[in-house]
Amino acid sequence: MVDVPTLVEQAREGRPRAVARLISLVEGASPQLREVMAALAPLTGNAYVVGLTGSPGVGKSTSTSALVSAYRRAGRRVGVLAVDPSSPFSGGALLGDRVRMGDHASDPGVYIRSMATRGHLGGLAWAAPQAIRVLDAAGCDVVLVETVGVGQSEVEIASQADTSVVLLAPGMGDGIQAAKAGILEIGDVYVVNKADRDGADATARELNHMLGLGEARAPGDWRPPIVKTVAARGEGLDELVEALEKHRAWMDERGVLGERRRARAAREVETIAVTALRERIGDLRGDRRLEALAARITEGTLDPWTAADELVAGVTENG
Amino acid sequence: MVDVPTLVEQAREGRPRAVARLISLVEGASPQLREVMAALAPLTGNAYVVGLTGSPGVGKSTSTSALVSAYRRAGRRVGVLAVDPSSPFSGGALLGDRVRMGDHASDPGVYIRSMATRGHLGGLAWAAPQAIRVLDAAGCDVVLVETVGVGQSEVEIASQADTSVVLLAPGMGDGIQAAKAGILEIGDVYVVNKADRDGADATARELNHMLGLGEARAPGDWRPPIVKTVAARGEGLDELVEALEKHRAWMDERGVLGERRRARAAREVETIAVTALRERIGDLRGDRRLEALAARITEGTLDPWTAADELVAGVTENG
Repeated sequence: MVDVPTLVEQAREGRPRAVARLISLVEGASPQLREVMAALAPLTGNAYVVGLTGSPGVGKSTSTSALVSAYRRAGRRVGVLAVDPSSPFSGGALLGDRVRMGDHASDPGVYIRSMATRGHLGGLAWAAPQAIRVLDAAGCDVVLVETVGVGQSEVEIASQADTSVVLLAPGMGDGIQAAKAGILEIGDVYVVNKADRDGADATARELNHMLGLGEARAPGDWRPPIVKTVAARGEGLDELVEALEKHRAWMDERGVLGERRRARAAREVETIAVTALRERIGDLRGDRRLEALAARITEGTLDPWTAADELVAGVTENG
Repeated sequence: MVDVPTLVEQAREGRPRAVARLISLVEGASPQLREVMAALAPLTGNAYVVGLTGSPGVGKSTSTSALVSAYRRAGRRVGVLAVDPSSPFSGGALLGDRVRMGDHASDPGVYIRSMATRGHLGGLAWAAPQAIRVLDAAGCDVVLVETVGVGQSEVEIASQADTSVVLLAPGMGDGIQAAKAGILEIGDVYVVNKADRDGADATARELNHMLGLGEARAPGDWRPPIVKTVAARGEGLDELVEALEKHRAWMDERGVLGERRRARAAREVETIAVTALRERIGDLRGDRRLEALAARITEGTLDPWTAADELVAGVTENG
């Protein structure tokens, strides 16, 4: 058993090992998580959470790393959560690009953590908000949530940030890929990275057109900016930070920040509750009730809805 | 209200409009779905369900269409479910590649249906198995489930088929992308499409190596074959059908087919049950209980786990 109060105290003091340990408890869905979250609750709510997403190859890791540098220059403490739903098959190797973050590995004002919780009950949607909570409580001013893939769950995670940044790069046809994955519409700020390459202006124009960014808006509405960067050389990063700060200020003024955070908390709670109920269903699996229902379905003597009724009844009875 | 018994009777007679109507009831999460599924239950269990997945650009639509042709030549009735989690933003345009299936549009032995249920409660994992059930009951001998994206939910859907086909193409670096998405390990049969291009043999070798297909296996274990195709010209499709039939026969002999179907039914029931419980949580959202909890969390006066306990208690009380 972990001594949670001591661990939380150490994390609050900014000790990296304590922070890492707490996130491991989240990833491992530790039975002590409940105790951890109760202890963290009064310490949270300060971090500004920025989601970064985009198709593979647009330079997300490099951009994240450059953004960390920019925030560090401004004296902010930064947490990075790199969310990777890569398979157990491919495992750690694909996290290799994390080494680019090595620049910041020795900086005590930066926490970096990769999460790959594919297959976990409730998955990333469950674990990511709680890991953000740990980084928040540990005193991070900014938490960057970088999603590696472009699937639905990554889009959901990115869209739950205070501010969502969508990255593109010229000439990858990634506009289409991003649109397919449902990424494009979630951006509060857009970045065309690798802007020194041919086609950067065309990509920005295409994006502007696809999103109708040039169209009239109600006064006071947010008009997502498109920032051009060359993250590998740190170019455009100050402009990106400025765009983020503008969005944050706009949200603050309009009460949007509070709304988004309450919505995020509601989803977090809902996910934990659904996971708990799902686990109860899993317990029914243990007593072979589900298998027996499934066998009757494949025989055609029972339909899945009636079977589901039985499961739900089992869960609520056991409540 | 829909006259369900008549609709089911018509679908069973093979009337395409009745089939389409039933799938629409699934997609729309109709309150009558329960009645539909009860009526379909005794009619299901005959279709052989084949999942096709792979990175964008490998030629999934073309391969699916060519596979339909091959099965039609063998006199089989074929259902196609193209699962596309594309966003509301991009919408119908991205389903444009469906027009390639136009070859089969006038063939009464083929049902083609695209599903794009992003944002739906329970999502594709909920809707796809029930749509398969409709096609099965309508007399399809084979149901091809083509997933357009490569996210986790698509991989889950593809992996729930009787047989999962993973498609690759030469020189796209898509081995890495597929591995990231967790696609690679789910294949029962692998296809290297566009095999007339340079690098097809290298792709097959790489795949063979990554998956350890050349390694010794226990006698009687399934060794996933790699089939080379040029789907656009219909080349290699008979070999693909042969590989599928071999896998089916192997599953039948070893009792694996029944196991997989029971597992699929169990997941289907579980998903319906979880969705039902999630809806009850949604009802709590309606009475603003969840919002009130979320507000307290953002204030730091409540932690998400204790909030989730309250939600779960609310759900099980109301049971």
